[in-house]
Amino acid sequence: MIHILFFIFALLFTSSTNAAVNDFCVANLNKADGPSGYPCITPTKVTADHFAFSGLGVAGNTTNIIKAAVTPSFVAQFPAVNGLGLSSARLDLAPGGVIPMHTHPAASEILFVVKGRIKAGFISSSANTVYVKTLKRGDVMVFPQGLLHFQINAGKYSALAVVSFNSPNPGLQILDFALFGNNLASTLVEQTTFLDDAQVKKLKGILGGTG
Amino acid sequence: MIHILFFIFALLFTSSTNAAVNDFCVANLNKADGPSGYPCITPTKVTADHFAFSGLGVAGNTTNIIKAAVTPSFVAQFPAVNGLGLSSARLDLAPGGVIPMHTHPAASEILFVVKGRIKAGFISSSANTVYVKTLKRGDVMVFPQGLLHFQINAGKYSALAVVSFNSPNPGLQILDFALFGNNLASTLVEQTTFLDDAQVKKLKGILGGTG
Amino acid sequence: MIHILFFIFALLFTSSTNAAVNDFCVANLNKADGPSGYPCITPTKVTADHFAFSGLGVAGNTTNIIKAAVTPSFVAQFPAVNGLGLSSARLDLAPGGVIPMHTHPAASEILFVVKGRIKAGFISSSANTVYVKTLKRGDVMVFPQGLLHFQINAGKYSALAVVSFNSPNPGLQILDFALFGNNLASTLVEQTTFLDDAQVKKLKGILGGTG
Amino acid sequence: MIHILFFIFALLFTSSTNAAVNDFCVANLNKADGPSGYPCITPTKVTADHFAFSGLGVAGNTTNIIKAAVTPSFVAQFPAVNGLGLSSARLDLAPGGVIPMHTHPAASEILFVVKGRIKAGFISSSANTVYVKTLKRGDVMVFPQGLLHFQINAGKYSALAVVSFNSPNPGLQILDFALFGNNLASTLVEQTTFLDDAQVKKLKGILGGTG
Amino acid sequence: MIHILFFIFALLFTSSTNAAVNDFCVANLNKADGPSGYPCITPTKVTADHFAFSGLGVAGNTTNIIKAAVTPSFVAQFPAVNGLGLSSARLDLAPGGVIPMHTHPAASEILFVVKGRIKAGFISSSANTVYVKTLKRGDVMVFPQGLLHFQINAGKYSALAVVSFNSPNPGLQILDFALFGNNLASTLVEQTTFLDDAQVKKLKGILGGTG
Amino acid sequence: MIHILFFIFALLFTSSTNAAVNDFCVANLNKADGPSGYPCITPTKVTADHFAFSGLGVAGNTTNIIKAAVTPSFVAQFPAVNGLGLSSARLDLAPGGVIPMHTHPAASEILFVVKGRIKAGFISSSANTVYVKTLKRGDVMVFPQGLLHFQINAGKYSALAVVSFNSPNPGLQILDFALFGNNLASTLVEQTTFLDDAQVKKLKGILGGTG
Repeated sequence: MIHILFFIFALLFTSSTNAAVNDFCVANLNKADGPSGYPCITPTKVTADHFAFSGLGVAGNTTNIIKAAVTPSFVAQFPAVNGLGLSSARLDLAPGGVIPMHTHPAASEILFVVKGRIKAGFISSSANTVYVKTLKRGDVMVFPQGLLHFQINAGKYSALAVVSFNSPNPGLQILDFALFGNNLASTLVEQTTFLDDAQVKKLKGILGGTG
Repeated sequence: MIHILFFIFALLFTSSTNAAVNDFCVANLNKADGPSGYPCITPTKVTADHFAFSGLGVAGNTTNIIKAAVTPSFVAQFPAVNGLGLSSARLDLAPGGVIPMHTHPAASEILFVVKGRIKAGFISSSANTVYVKTLKRGDVMVFPQGLLHFQINAGKYSALAVVSFNSPNPGLQILDFALFGNNLASTLVEQTTFLDDAQVKKLKGILGGTG
Repeated sequence: MIHILFFIFALLFTSSTNAAVNDFCVANLNKADGPSGYPCITPTKVTADHFAFSGLGVAGNTTNIIKAAVTPSFVAQFPAVNGLGLSSARLDLAPGGVIPMHTHPAASEILFVVKGRIKAGFISSSANTVYVKTLKRGDVMVFPQGLLHFQINAGKYSALAVVSFNSPNPGLQILDFALFGNNLASTLVEQTTFLDDAQVKKLKGILGGTG
Repeated sequence: MIHILFFIFALLFTSSTNAAVNDFCVANLNKADGPSGYPCITPTKVTADHFAFSGLGVAGNTTNIIKAAVTPSFVAQFPAVNGLGLSSARLDLAPGGVIPMHTHPAASEILFVVKGRIKAGFISSSANTVYVKTLKRGDVMVFPQGLLHFQINAGKYSALAVVSFNSPNPGLQILDFALFGNNLASTLVEQTTFLDDAQVKKLKGILGGTG
Repeated sequence: MIHILFFIFALLFTSSTNAAVNDFCVANLNKADGPSGYPCITPTKVTADHFAFSGLGVAGNTTNIIKAAVTPSFVAQFPAVNGLGLSSARLDLAPGGVIPMHTHPAASEILFVVKGRIKAGFISSSANTVYVKTLKRGDVMVFPQGLLHFQINAGKYSALAVVSFNSPNPGLQILDFALFGNNLASTLVEQTTFLDDAQVKKLKGILGGTG
Repeated sequence: MIHILFFIFALLFTSSTNAAVNDFCVANLNKADGPSGYPCITPTKVTADHFAFSGLGVAGNTTNIIKAAVTPSFVAQFPAVNGLGLSSARLDLAPGGVIPMHTHPAASEILFVVKGRIKAGFISSSANTVYVKTLKRGDVMVFPQGLLHFQINAGKYSALAVVSFNSPNPGLQILDFALFGNNLASTLVEQTTFLDDAQVKKLKGILGGTG
């Protein structure tokens, strides 16, 4: 009898809160994004599988010019992070590998070295002070939001790091692609960066930019 | 001559912004905390060493009853995360190890399995639905803010995970310590949890609680 | 003539701002929730009735095992609170009544005693310090976000309190239901809480849990 | 032996988190305020008494021209709400009592009628639509942030309401005091409100304004 | 060959991030607003034209009773500001022109004088202190969120200012319209403001209010 | 008698709120910054002069290599913006003038052309799409937070713009200074940007960088 009474209480209470589950808001990527994220899929359609993601378990392909790869688990890959203020990515750096100079417009980043040695640094906006550290396995480094930063393999073997951001969609602006990988006119690039035309044309050629 | 002119421009510009560097705000732990974090140490005293932390590189001591250890790099250990909206921790689980049922009152959590197999799960607040996954190396799982969750070593060997939070100070409320590890009167524990007195007394004995 | 000129001015001005009324955003509960709340119903369909709610005027039914009832006016009951950062609830405690140990994952809570005597407390996450107060009519108590807390009728007569939260959807995780009211396997409960199997089975029986 | 091991684990864990308790941040009102609130008093000096406040249990003095009184429990009166995003106040309205037209610049408000009948309303900013409701005991009404609103005793007996805000310091701008209770020059008041000089002078006389 | 490799890398990387562009979220004004703004139009449909707005380049019509005009570029006029935390407006004041007493419920404001002389001021909520300054060309003034403020042409010639707000939709509550430009019953206005009935009736007549 | 009663009421009410004025928080620049801004100067020491700033009324000196100048009114220059979520700056561009490629790590920007013609643009982070507009007097353009952008004088005469940010301290990272104006080793610059050594050395020479 007691347990029936408790159960009835449970029904009385929970029924009034079921309507709006907002512990999480798994992104409905078929709907339009909004300033705070995507609309949620129906809570009753959410399963445990939504909350786990395997994509960071596969080494990225580092046979490319930068000998590195970034594998993201942002909201587009991992819809469950929608509205939860977090996302992650995996960085693979082969020997000599480089994650080129870049920023995350919308988030700070914390990096954990899983394997190898990584030289990483960022540049502050005021006084342009440089902060560079050589990190070993188990080291953590933090990169404040929006600042230019980079990671380089500082060892003889491949390196692996996992990074987290305080946004489901931190953004990523790789400097070289922003300057040389689009159709921004060479003259504009030169006027706004003081780079030589030969330099600009050369990198546009490599990166597929036009103009 | 050109470079002198540029340099003068640089002086003219940067001097007006040096006064208030706020790319980061390395915590002055000698001062009082505030609702948004600690006051900053003087920017000119900040070095690259502030932005890296080695403490997560040392395996925690798992020779204890839960056969697990949590090593945090919250603001108290890693002052540079102050105001940057992120922090991390290292989870070591020996075979049979358990991170007991707990919550982070102020943050969501994202977990990356570095090694081993981990069974992890959380309980939603509405309808108390359980979401449990067995994770392998490279898997990521996200735990929404404030909900009860746990991690268990699901393999035969030791497991290692690194977790990140979207707060420099996510908080940690371990259920057993909250209920049995303090001086909350046994009668109050029993009234508010319906646990039996014998159970409460037993766990208070183990966990050092009184009352 | 003057008033006509003023009126024309009014038209000129207001017409350009009517398009996007965002003083409030009464929830359209027929649409999907999002990380910041529900989409708004059309402003022209909003009436004064939307901004008031009577549900907290009816005593909840306390003839149950905990001799208490919680009547919420969260966004699901009171759509006008959507996006306004607030919600409320009514707590009725019969003599001997208890609101069991619980958390609100997403909000802090402020409680006002309307009638009777209530013993209320919370447990901090660090050091698990217990803060308990016996409150009388007119007393206010605040419970920080995400921490375990409870309320108990400390008098001989029924007690009534009204609580407010700094979220339209604060969430509610009742400890007993989270542990014993679902299908979380008993072995998992025991591994993560160190509770005895007999205790777990007993409470699962009462609360309708399985596994 | 087991309990000793558990206790040691507890020590190992908690010691690293004690340094920065941030479940709450009881205001140190002797220090300067900041954009997010006051610095915290030392956590070890915080007791249960900090989290409760009795001031709302005393009826305010309504023998004045508006036959009403507001008794706040903002951060200045109730330092524990600092950083917790909430505060409250008590409204007493004698028969014929009025809380005059006012705004809270920084917060939304939710009102609960404890006793009596209250006519309350607010004016939206776009189209200046008026939303007025007559509330009875147990009714709740929400007032969006920053909008002009008022409460009037609509019954024959005294009325009592308790209000909560989603800020520890919601602010309060009473229209009459803003216009007539200071040294804002009468000509300026008239230029910016189109009120007649006689009206302005009269109310300045009553409210103690000059100029 | 090198550039092909780089290009392939670019494809590998960018393809995974294209799905969710959230640098910006140009408002889809055909969809319902939400607490954080409008849903975004499809990113691929966004052009440079979305990010510029010409409407503030046209002088507002100041041949009206207040000899002033406000031309907004809020989200309704300039959808690109959706989710970006900013908006602007243009203020034209003919000689003798006045922007009457008003508030922005949801935002602070910063004003830049382009031409002329402007006397501007606001009233604080506590102690109702008045802060008034006469501004000349090039001067900047800031008005804290939610407080009553005004601008008056203090010179002999027309004045022009541009203002910015830290919200895409700051709201605007003009005092006179809130009190006299709607159907708020005269008795209610008088009860809540202590204005004389003759004054209220007069201004309702001018402003088109009823009741 | 009436006015005395009202005045007494005023005293009763306002005295309880004077303790914590938080309409504004004029920065005490002599104290340490914190994550949400500076501590406030004592409210009673605040005057109207604090809320206005004249510095943007003086043309910046454009006789330099970029033929442009930026004059900020961030919190360091204009302490009253502390905690108010806004700041501004003045851009002067002589014929041929350029504000070089830069980002604001912490804020979005809105620009108003006061005089002249300005070609302005930004680069999105995903797909690196370029958005460039030529703006004339009265035009407004918005630049999302954290993205690379620039302004160029597109006319024959000097141009003037005023910009606002949704932060008291938006930060400013000028690309050339970040890469070439500090002691970041040339090899690191080259590794992370693929720029040629000759190019790097040349710009380091001009900008005063070493390494």
